[in-house]
Amino acid sequence: MVLPHLPPALVLLDYFGIAVFAVSGAILAAEKRQTLVTFIFFATVTGVGGGTLRDLLIGAPVFWVHTNATLLICIAAALLVWVLSHRRFTHRSLLWFDAAGLAAYSTYGAAKALAFGVAPVPAAAMGVLTACFGGIVRDLLAGEPSILMRPELYVTAAALSSGLFVLLALAGVGPVAALVAALAAFIVRGLAIARGWKLPAYRN
Amino acid sequence: MVLPHLPPALVLLDYFGIAVFAVSGAILAAEKRQTLVTFIFFATVTGVGGGTLRDLLIGAPVFWVHTNATLLICIAAALLVWVLSHRRFTHRSLLWFDAAGLAAYSTYGAAKALAFGVAPVPAAAMGVLTACFGGIVRDLLAGEPSILMRPELYVTAAALSSGLFVLLALAGVGPVAALVAALAAFIVRGLAIARGWKLPAYRN
Amino acid sequence: MVLPHLPPALVLLDYFGIAVFAVSGAILAAEKRQTLVTFIFFATVTGVGGGTLRDLLIGAPVFWVHTNATLLICIAAALLVWVLSHRRFTHRSLLWFDAAGLAAYSTYGAAKALAFGVAPVPAAAMGVLTACFGGIVRDLLAGEPSILMRPELYVTAAALSSGLFVLLALAGVGPVAALVAALAAFIVRGLAIARGWKLPAYRN
Repeated sequence: MVLPHLPPALVLLDYFGIAVFAVSGAILAAEKRQTLVTFIFFATVTGVGGGTLRDLLIGAPVFWVHTNATLLICIAAALLVWVLSHRRFTHRSLLWFDAAGLAAYSTYGAAKALAFGVAPVPAAAMGVLTACFGGIVRDLLAGEPSILMRPELYVTAAALSSGLFVLLALAGVGPVAALVAALAAFIVRGLAIARGWKLPAYRN
Repeated sequence: MVLPHLPPALVLLDYFGIAVFAVSGAILAAEKRQTLVTFIFFATVTGVGGGTLRDLLIGAPVFWVHTNATLLICIAAALLVWVLSHRRFTHRSLLWFDAAGLAAYSTYGAAKALAFGVAPVPAAAMGVLTACFGGIVRDLLAGEPSILMRPELYVTAAALSSGLFVLLALAGVGPVAALVAALAAFIVRGLAIARGWKLPAYRN
Repeated sequence: MVLPHLPPALVLLDYFGIAVFAVSGAILAAEKRQTLVTFIFFATVTGVGGGTLRDLLIGAPVFWVHTNATLLICIAAALLVWVLSHRRFTHRSLLWFDAAGLAAYSTYGAAKALAFGVAPVPAAAMGVLTACFGGIVRDLLAGEPSILMRPELYVTAAALSSGLFVLLALAGVGPVAALVAALAAFIVRGLAIARGWKLPAYRN
């Protein structure tokens, strides 16, 4: 099978998403007073979880299996959080790293799915699922209430970004589409964290 | 790879399973007072979760990735539950939609596995796993106690249906086998819901 | 695709890992006072969960899908636990069966990954993830706190074993590498169970 190539800007977005999700996993391990090995485990599962699900679903080779670099990034992120003082990583910082990962992965996930010939609606869904999956698994493993169930915008930010990217890509907009989409997700999720923005909940 | 074709009756069973599981996911989102986006997320994960796991395990292309229709069904199911009054969807109705999904998916899962050349015992297991997986993920994400651990017949109904279908298919019985198997699961699970039927639990 | 062949000693390790993980799943079902069908479900998910994830990640056909033998081993393990008196299976015995599964699967997982051409760091990670995944899913389904979060050495024992195996294999050591690596994991995890050995936890 000949694999499609993605532009370098998107590949950078991928590494960025891995690193910030890995940091968010390690911060949760720190909150839970775990050992260094568990730091690495949480960083890795959070960092590569979403992309792994995406690759399995679209039938791509899982991206971290044939290279050493990806896991070494996750291990480095875990060591970084371990070495730096706990005071610098509050639960709020976890939310911000998670937001950056959400923005990067929702865009990159949709882009990779389109590159593999996935239909538009599932390509957008692929962005959402893969942006949210790392954080969902991180919370499940730690026994935390899922970030999914919090009232502020979360899935919505990912859906905005991946839907926007698919629309812009179908309209023929070039690499700048990725930047616009990722920024949109980060701003919306950022407002949710900073100002508690939320969608109306079901109340019937 | 040339993909095997399944008879139209089974394809209908598949769409039916997706829709009713999607409704059950949306009802749980309603119970949890979530937003519309989370309704869609829950409906989708519950609707396609089991079939996704089945396709990954048997090495089939994941069924919803190359078409827009499947996810649009899940989105429609979520909108339907959102629009209709909450009073029409109690926790009991969630159980009945889940039961219909269980019956459809345990049969269809075993049939698709056999069509892809899976051995008989794992083909029956494929029916069980895929019928139960959507509901398991739905409950995990919502932080609900898993439907698996309830005392009434649940896995058993799925095992009955997929085991029966594999036996009938090996005996050369035609499409009616799917109807018989799905009905058997629905009746057994229905009696479990309505009358509390259960298997004896371990008590040594 | 021509599949690589693994030496018979490793195949035995695989069956051993399946059986002991299946027993650990059935013991947890017994603790939770479940039915026979749920015993089988838990035994199967725990027995084949780790290897299934490994095979999906490395792009191998899922090992239990084209044979009846693997699932019959899991069913037999569940029946065995059901028939024998509960008194013989305390929570402590669950930990020991889990330790044996951890040792067997961390080694076998790394070996199968190397045989499929996976890079060294992810091959070691494959051993860890797949050794831990069966037990993680077992605990999640049962609503137990994850074995991951316990203070004693767990992921560490798996990481030691799969890392050691990859190093020995790269150094050209033959089948004895598997024995050495599996024993190392079992001894470390055993000391964690018997004497409460742990790594220092994060305390900044």
